[in-house]
Amino acid sequence: MPAVSDLDHIRSLIHDRFLIELSESMQPMPVREIVATIGSLPSAEAALVFRLLDKDTAIAVFDVLDPAAQADLIETLGHTEFAEMISTLEPDEQTRLFDELPAKVAKRMLASLDPHQRDAAMALLGYRPGSVGRHMSPEPLTASVDDTVGDVLRRVRAADGGVAAYAAIPVLTQGRVLVGVIDLIELLRHDVPEPVASFMDADPVSARTDDDVERIARRSLDHGDLLLPVVDREDRLVGSFPIADAALIDKEAVAEDQARAGASEPLRRPYLLTSVRRIARTRIVWLLVLAVSAVLTVHVLELFEATLSQQVALALFIPLLIGIGGNTGSQAATTVTRALALGDVGLRDILRVAWKEVRTGLLLGLVLAILAFTVATLIYDIGIGTVIGVTLLLNCPIAATVGGVIPLVARACRVDPAVFSTPFISTFCDASGLIVYFTVAITVLNL
Amino acid sequence: MPAVSDLDHIRSLIHDRFLIELSESMQPMPVREIVATIGSLPSAEAALVFRLLDKDTAIAVFDVLDPAAQADLIETLGHTEFAEMISTLEPDEQTRLFDELPAKVAKRMLASLDPHQRDAAMALLGYRPGSVGRHMSPEPLTASVDDTVGDVLRRVRAADGGVAAYAAIPVLTQGRVLVGVIDLIELLRHDVPEPVASFMDADPVSARTDDDVERIARRSLDHGDLLLPVVDREDRLVGSFPIADAALIDKEAVAEDQARAGASEPLRRPYLLTSVRRIARTRIVWLLVLAVSAVLTVHVLELFEATLSQQVALALFIPLLIGIGGNTGSQAATTVTRALALGDVGLRDILRVAWKEVRTGLLLGLVLAILAFTVATLIYDIGIGTVIGVTLLLNCPIAATVGGVIPLVARACRVDPAVFSTPFISTFCDASGLIVYFTVAITVLNL
Repeated sequence: MPAVSDLDHIRSLIHDRFLIELSESMQPMPVREIVATIGSLPSAEAALVFRLLDKDTAIAVFDVLDPAAQADLIETLGHTEFAEMISTLEPDEQTRLFDELPAKVAKRMLASLDPHQRDAAMALLGYRPGSVGRHMSPEPLTASVDDTVGDVLRRVRAADGGVAAYAAIPVLTQGRVLVGVIDLIELLRHDVPEPVASFMDADPVSARTDDDVERIARRSLDHGDLLLPVVDREDRLVGSFPIADAALIDKEAVAEDQARAGASEPLRRPYLLTSVRRIARTRIVWLLVLAVSAVLTVHVLELFEATLSQQVALALFIPLLIGIGGNTGSQAATTVTRALALGDVGLRDILRVAWKEVRTGLLLGLVLAILAFTVATLIYDIGIGTVIGVTLLLNCPIAATVGGVIPLVARACRVDPAVFSTPFISTFCDASGLIVYFTVAITVLNL
Repeated sequence: MPAVSDLDHIRSLIHDRFLIELSESMQPMPVREIVATIGSLPSAEAALVFRLLDKDTAIAVFDVLDPAAQADLIETLGHTEFAEMISTLEPDEQTRLFDELPAKVAKRMLASLDPHQRDAAMALLGYRPGSVGRHMSPEPLTASVDDTVGDVLRRVRAADGGVAAYAAIPVLTQGRVLVGVIDLIELLRHDVPEPVASFMDADPVSARTDDDVERIARRSLDHGDLLLPVVDREDRLVGSFPIADAALIDKEAVAEDQARAGASEPLRRPYLLTSVRRIARTRIVWLLVLAVSAVLTVHVLELFEATLSQQVALALFIPLLIGIGGNTGSQAATTVTRALALGDVGLRDILRVAWKEVRTGLLLGLVLAILAFTVATLIYDIGIGTVIGVTLLLNCPIAATVGGVIPLVARACRVDPAVFSTPFISTFCDASGLIVYFTVAITVLNL
């Protein structure tokens, strides 16, 4: 038994939500003392104490608990009120405090929750937001390495649910370690007494709870993996990831990318059912960012106000030139953002990307410059024609290079490339484009 | 036997590729005469004649052919040389000339082709580009309504391939009409002598050959349909559409949308492996369209050149104002294009979309106007502050409404909203924004 004073101390820490201190004060406690503490606390407090243990201790403690206490603990962990209590913590704090849940516990907890509860409860399983752990489904039917086809067939027959839920059947050791996967159809093609281990895929593809869920979703879709087993750090099975969930997550990721490429946030509901105020809210932040950064262009133009008064005609080409520059930049950004999402490029390729974009920009600039020079010389004069042509020839490679490099920099800073790129590129391309334009004009026209 | 003169006439039409005349001249011919004609022509020419028959006639003719002639015909139809001959026709002409292939023929032809040949051969099956018919896989294993579980199990055991290929087994009548689908797992749960008709899903989801493949791909992914049966106009099974193909098609559609939203065309190969010239080619068309349409802004500014000379400071705000206008427009376009893709809005909603965007634009304009008026009044003077504020208040609803409505108009004109919207919106918003700006300036500042 823990000393009463210890128990009182723990209770007061729980009461005051001093979770860091609570976690620290339990670190040196031996397993049997923790078990005794958990036994003498009310369910919610016991669950909180259990959740603060590091994974190895939690495994040891859970194994010592009697089945009734285990069931009680699982139920409390999955309870909405417990989830709400935890959700008052900062997400950072949650991730730091809560180690990954032991496979045995995570598995039983997942299975005990209905899909609505699951969303809330997942937050406190110790998986970071955006990880596979946060989005996995309960494990499907499993087989043991010692099972025969007949054993597994019996379980499949007893279960309900369609082929999507049992397309791939994970094969586990006694310790829940994933060692293989059986394709459901193989059960039909083998005799009842055959051991499943003889024909299982012994090198199965799986996802880890801390893998990035969008990446795994994309991989499932690319490879057509109907049902991916999800394992923890020790390769123990804790859940599954069906292709239908992969499709859903990929769809949301795409919606977010598309909205951000258009400089807004995605709507969570159908367009016509979303209120004007809510739509405006998805757009205003971006407009403000753009408006504030566009003030830079006002300042740049102020520098050249004297030049402008001398030659007002220069103002006529401002929208055309910054339009072309901005577009060249966003084209490059779109291509590189996409290549990043597909894993075709990474931060290590930054110089190769820059070199490719310099040349692409030069080629584009050359075509546009020849065209613009010809047209502007015919309509205005050779002076204006030269200024416009040279400006385009210089601006396009600058815009393309910045547009191509910025998404990589954003990724390196762990910012969503789509969020960061749009305002930054348009501001940079506008401002640098204007500086180039007026510098060229002053030089060529001797202003 | 057809008269020798008829046969010569047909041969000369084939030789000269007068396919429309050929098709017309066969219309009044009775079935037995067509069969005889096909019998007396070399394989390639016979296949061409067969392919020009309307569907009902083709069914009748195929049924009369002896098995060897049927096999010969199928082989020739699937032959690369035949595909090449047909591919010299305009796509429009192909679609107009070639009716849907009878289910029996399509099915056997699909099965006889390897995946590489399939792409080429699909073009001449009479399915329009972008239809499910062009992208379907051969039909999976099927069951007949009279089959027992044992019958189907035997066939599943004899086949190779994993669960993805047999997740859903179509159940057909004698005439190949789809009447149900069996979930593979149900074969495990029912006794061998049971008829499959007793537990099949008698109201199965299927796709039609002429359905839009991107829409069906999206639906498969949304509903998690692992394997969708594909039927022709008479509900006869011709192929299947696995979820992995749906994922692939959806990925390409998304890549295209994203590239076009960024005003370029998608790259077909990984970024770093694509040459500079090829990358430039995906961007130059869009830049030229934008550059040409941006000339409009030069003309608009020329109209106000006198005003500009009087008040050069007005030029300073041009990039800021058109930047905000263009972004407001493209935000609305992105949201509505997405809503269109998801089926949330259609052309019938054009007035509701316009009304929503007018109000959203007004709200955004109001926020930006208050902010801009305050800042510009403090830094410059109340005159400039008023001009900037009023311009934003007017421009934002115009830009948002045009941005929201254009994708719907594009869809109505059967143009890809993403292709049409970007250059049109930026040009329109830039030009209209400048007109509003200078009109407001002339009025407020009494220029």
